[in-house]
Amino acid sequence: MTSRNKTRGPLGLFARYLPILDWGRQYDRNALSNDLIAAVIVTIMLIPQSLAYALLAGLPPEAGIYASIVPIMLYAVFGTSRALAVGPVAVVSLMTAAAIGNVAEAGTMGYAIAALTLAFLSGTILLVMGVFRLGFLANFLSHPVIAGFITASGILIAASQLKHILGVSAGGHSLLELMVSLIAHLGDTNWITLIIGVSATAFLFWVRKGLKPLLRKAGLGPRMADVATKAGPVAAVVVTTVLTWGLNLGTHGVAIVGEVPQSLPPLTMPSLSPTLVGQLFVPALLISIIGFVESISVAQTLAAKKRQRIDPDQELIGLGAANIGAAFTGGYPVTGGFARSVVNFDAGAETPAAGAFTAVGLAIAAIALTPLVYYLPKATLAATIIVAVLSLVDFSILKKTWSYSRADFFAVAGTILLTLGFGVETGVSAGVILSIALHLYKTSKPHVAEVGLVPGTQHFRNVLRHRVETDDRVLNLRVDESLYFVNARFLEDLIQSRVAQDCPIKHVVLMCSAVNEIDFSALESLEAINRRLGELGISLHLSEVKGPVMDRLRKSHFLDELTGAVHQSQYDAWAALTGRRPLPAAAE
Amino acid sequence: MTSRNKTRGPLGLFARYLPILDWGRQYDRNALSNDLIAAVIVTIMLIPQSLAYALLAGLPPEAGIYASIVPIMLYAVFGTSRALAVGPVAVVSLMTAAAIGNVAEAGTMGYAIAALTLAFLSGTILLVMGVFRLGFLANFLSHPVIAGFITASGILIAASQLKHILGVSAGGHSLLELMVSLIAHLGDTNWITLIIGVSATAFLFWVRKGLKPLLRKAGLGPRMADVATKAGPVAAVVVTTVLTWGLNLGTHGVAIVGEVPQSLPPLTMPSLSPTLVGQLFVPALLISIIGFVESISVAQTLAAKKRQRIDPDQELIGLGAANIGAAFTGGYPVTGGFARSVVNFDAGAETPAAGAFTAVGLAIAAIALTPLVYYLPKATLAATIIVAVLSLVDFSILKKTWSYSRADFFAVAGTILLTLGFGVETGVSAGVILSIALHLYKTSKPHVAEVGLVPGTQHFRNVLRHRVETDDRVLNLRVDESLYFVNARFLEDLIQSRVAQDCPIKHVVLMCSAVNEIDFSALESLEAINRRLGELGISLHLSEVKGPVMDRLRKSHFLDELTGAVHQSQYDAWAALTGRRPLPAAAE
Repeated sequence: MTSRNKTRGPLGLFARYLPILDWGRQYDRNALSNDLIAAVIVTIMLIPQSLAYALLAGLPPEAGIYASIVPIMLYAVFGTSRALAVGPVAVVSLMTAAAIGNVAEAGTMGYAIAALTLAFLSGTILLVMGVFRLGFLANFLSHPVIAGFITASGILIAASQLKHILGVSAGGHSLLELMVSLIAHLGDTNWITLIIGVSATAFLFWVRKGLKPLLRKAGLGPRMADVATKAGPVAAVVVTTVLTWGLNLGTHGVAIVGEVPQSLPPLTMPSLSPTLVGQLFVPALLISIIGFVESISVAQTLAAKKRQRIDPDQELIGLGAANIGAAFTGGYPVTGGFARSVVNFDAGAETPAAGAFTAVGLAIAAIALTPLVYYLPKATLAATIIVAVLSLVDFSILKKTWSYSRADFFAVAGTILLTLGFGVETGVSAGVILSIALHLYKTSKPHVAEVGLVPGTQHFRNVLRHRVETDDRVLNLRVDESLYFVNARFLEDLIQSRVAQDCPIKHVVLMCSAVNEIDFSALESLEAINRRLGELGISLHLSEVKGPVMDRLRKSHFLDELTGAVHQSQYDAWAALTGRRPLPAAAE
Repeated sequence: MTSRNKTRGPLGLFARYLPILDWGRQYDRNALSNDLIAAVIVTIMLIPQSLAYALLAGLPPEAGIYASIVPIMLYAVFGTSRALAVGPVAVVSLMTAAAIGNVAEAGTMGYAIAALTLAFLSGTILLVMGVFRLGFLANFLSHPVIAGFITASGILIAASQLKHILGVSAGGHSLLELMVSLIAHLGDTNWITLIIGVSATAFLFWVRKGLKPLLRKAGLGPRMADVATKAGPVAAVVVTTVLTWGLNLGTHGVAIVGEVPQSLPPLTMPSLSPTLVGQLFVPALLISIIGFVESISVAQTLAAKKRQRIDPDQELIGLGAANIGAAFTGGYPVTGGFARSVVNFDAGAETPAAGAFTAVGLAIAAIALTPLVYYLPKATLAATIIVAVLSLVDFSILKKTWSYSRADFFAVAGTILLTLGFGVETGVSAGVILSIALHLYKTSKPHVAEVGLVPGTQHFRNVLRHRVETDDRVLNLRVDESLYFVNARFLEDLIQSRVAQDCPIKHVVLMCSAVNEIDFSALESLEAINRRLGELGISLHLSEVKGPVMDRLRKSHFLDELTGAVHQSQYDAWAALTGRRPLPAAAE
């Protein structure tokens, strides 16, 4: 929660939903010039990228540019990040293609309308989540699952672009489908396209890896060298376009972008037909969540570098507005992109105004520059996508989680395999379900330690790990988990079999320092444990029960029926039940 | 885990899967006579009950009897409960009707085959769960959800039988559908049927409530009085059958049971058509889980009374075998029933042999007595069902959970409403999902307490609830929840905003006594917290980290990067950071 929440009244509400009022008041000439420079650099980078991502989504190239104009402006008004650049991004473009590919044929009017509808639904979902402060829902995607999903998506995206490099037609949602389809069409390869595609890919890889050190050696500053390498795709676009035009390669079967309307973003209407909304709702939800997670991670990383704060719920509103903007201006689902935001930040953007200036730059490009991309080969765009997404592929998460936690490893591995095997929607849903299932499985069999007193202290630790003092008549158990329905019966069974083995036990003390909740199922189990121990002449005690848990227990009959007592600390329980009290106990 | 697990080798494996070897060896004349008496009483009770539940499941009456014969015998061999009586029960019969009603028309051959297939699938699922020791999966149904589901099912079942009392045809899965359908057919009411149905219902209610005190007054022992009242349905069956036969009421539109084949259970084959298996798999899973939960609760309650132990995983195998038996002998899904098991137990059953004798009794009934039920009115069977299930209806769980825990209350209320509104399958699935979602929601915003030292002790408690010692430079936070992906970001935000408010803080100590797990997502969050605090010149410390959690952390780089230290106890951390050490600290 930021201090913005404390502002009340109609003006306060305004300020809450319009962060622009915050930074707009302090805007000065210095910020303006920094923002303008950043905007020029980002605009140049975004022109080929926007065309490429539209291609990835199966939409006409101009949709990528339109999706960058109005959404950027709306985010500038409603968003809280100062450097986030909103527009089409790789993963969301792929998810868009997967979602609308199920309801319409690529290239048709229905396909474009489905894209608008998807953006509209996604925007509405994000807005609703923001207004109801449901940003925490994004937490149900664990970090490793996100990492696995992004890696697998990167591979899928790269694979989906190979058809453009080869100049053949192919398709599919899973890696296997994509590969089978590609191999089946391998005979149709257009060799000129392949040469363009492979050269462009090789050039872009070299720009990414080799150019920067070269420029640094040539005496360029680190920031300028960085910016120059980001312009690599522009060079590839210019060179291959000129070649295709000069040698008239279009007539030799090289697929080109072709006619792109010279126009500002048009006014468009998403369809609200219940059938279409029904078909697209779940994909829109997944796109919203993935988009939000990607965007908020970028925004938080960049904000932390300048000690700024991001308000996740307001971010939902900013992204929601951006997507609704995309839906009415010929775009498709957008979010805060990693690459474009980092370029924006590195180029010195100070406020969201940089985004607004970028939008103006792209609007000029949409009117003035579109005829120039007529001869741009689609293979070049595919090459820019492949090089961009392969940097997302990072299998190190598998190694890291394997050594740290097997459950996390299985969640990541499952997400990667399911994404590659069944496509993005199955992959991300399965990732969420896997994470939750593994978490529940772990808590269903909690760690329970028998504890004893660390000599000379009031501190109790596991008898198996530490040299501690114990007493035959008193069984001290520390349950390392909240007690709730998933593990309620586990504790019943455990205590039953533990006291069955051990005759001298007269008291069982449950040390509740790690019990953060006792739900109704667990309460019933505790009642059963208390009753059964009572029948064996053993009394049940609790110690270190947390305030909120104790408040709850007081509302039930359990404390009246408890055969033993509730002790403030485990040491108090020990002193009372064994009579040994080397140190003074806690005041009750 | 019982000691049976410790037995190894082929004979041990035998003993594990065949509990009959346990009790069979010690079987004597005394146990035999007790078991025989119990079997006679249970057989008499089961004849009308089996016919009635078959009616509820939409199957011919003999299916109910067949479902009680071979399954009981198989359970006697494989089950671990000494008193559990396996056979058709109300809730599972209703779930069977709902499941197979979707794939076939009641009364057709396909319907009967679907019932066999459902039993086969359910048996296989239970067996597999047993072999892989997946009994814990049943814990995902919380106690309140089960209570709510049983209550709502009782109401649905009673409502579904009203058509037999009125003598009309009606149907539906939800309470609303059932009621609308009944009201639409109200005009077709058969008045003679109605008189029989209402009288039988009233008589059975009176037997349940009024007869027992009367018999006790007449000098009967409590156990005999109890057994006699359980024979009430038999009396109702005899009287109404004789009346219907004598007055020839069948010709006046009173629906009667009619011809029931005089035969031992036939050999039948479930269908394994992939379509049917696909359609019935999810219902079979739900039936398995609900059946298992009902059965294990009854078995554990009865076993506890005699200090016996139930092995849940072996119970799965026993119930699985029983259901597979039902599939091959003309039955339908079965489980351990509450009413019949309690009668069996009260009648003095000592071993599963009582069940085997009951099976013999029912087999004799199937051959010899079936012609006698020709004139039995269906309205009488409906009356026995209504009276039996209304005893399951208990809304007190709503009141109990409301006062103890709102989350549990919402889970129960949701389960009841969804079961009544959309039928049993939706109801129970929603119950599971609701329980899990509410649990995750609660853990997503954990309770975090700022703690201080209770004077004169080494014990730390919440500064808001106790009079404790604190230090301006040291922020001691006790997080009352395991740190995992759902709440990882929460802690980041919380610490960020807490240290932003408070300037003198130099050290943050996370007291981890309640942190039972730190998953990979939370590890990354801790790394981020450590880095950000470090940038502000604040060091991060941990205290009271549990053994298993510490083992994990040692495998990562986190401890190398940690700006502060890991302290064995919170008191050690306090002493080290404040220099105040009124009492000796724990040995490291």
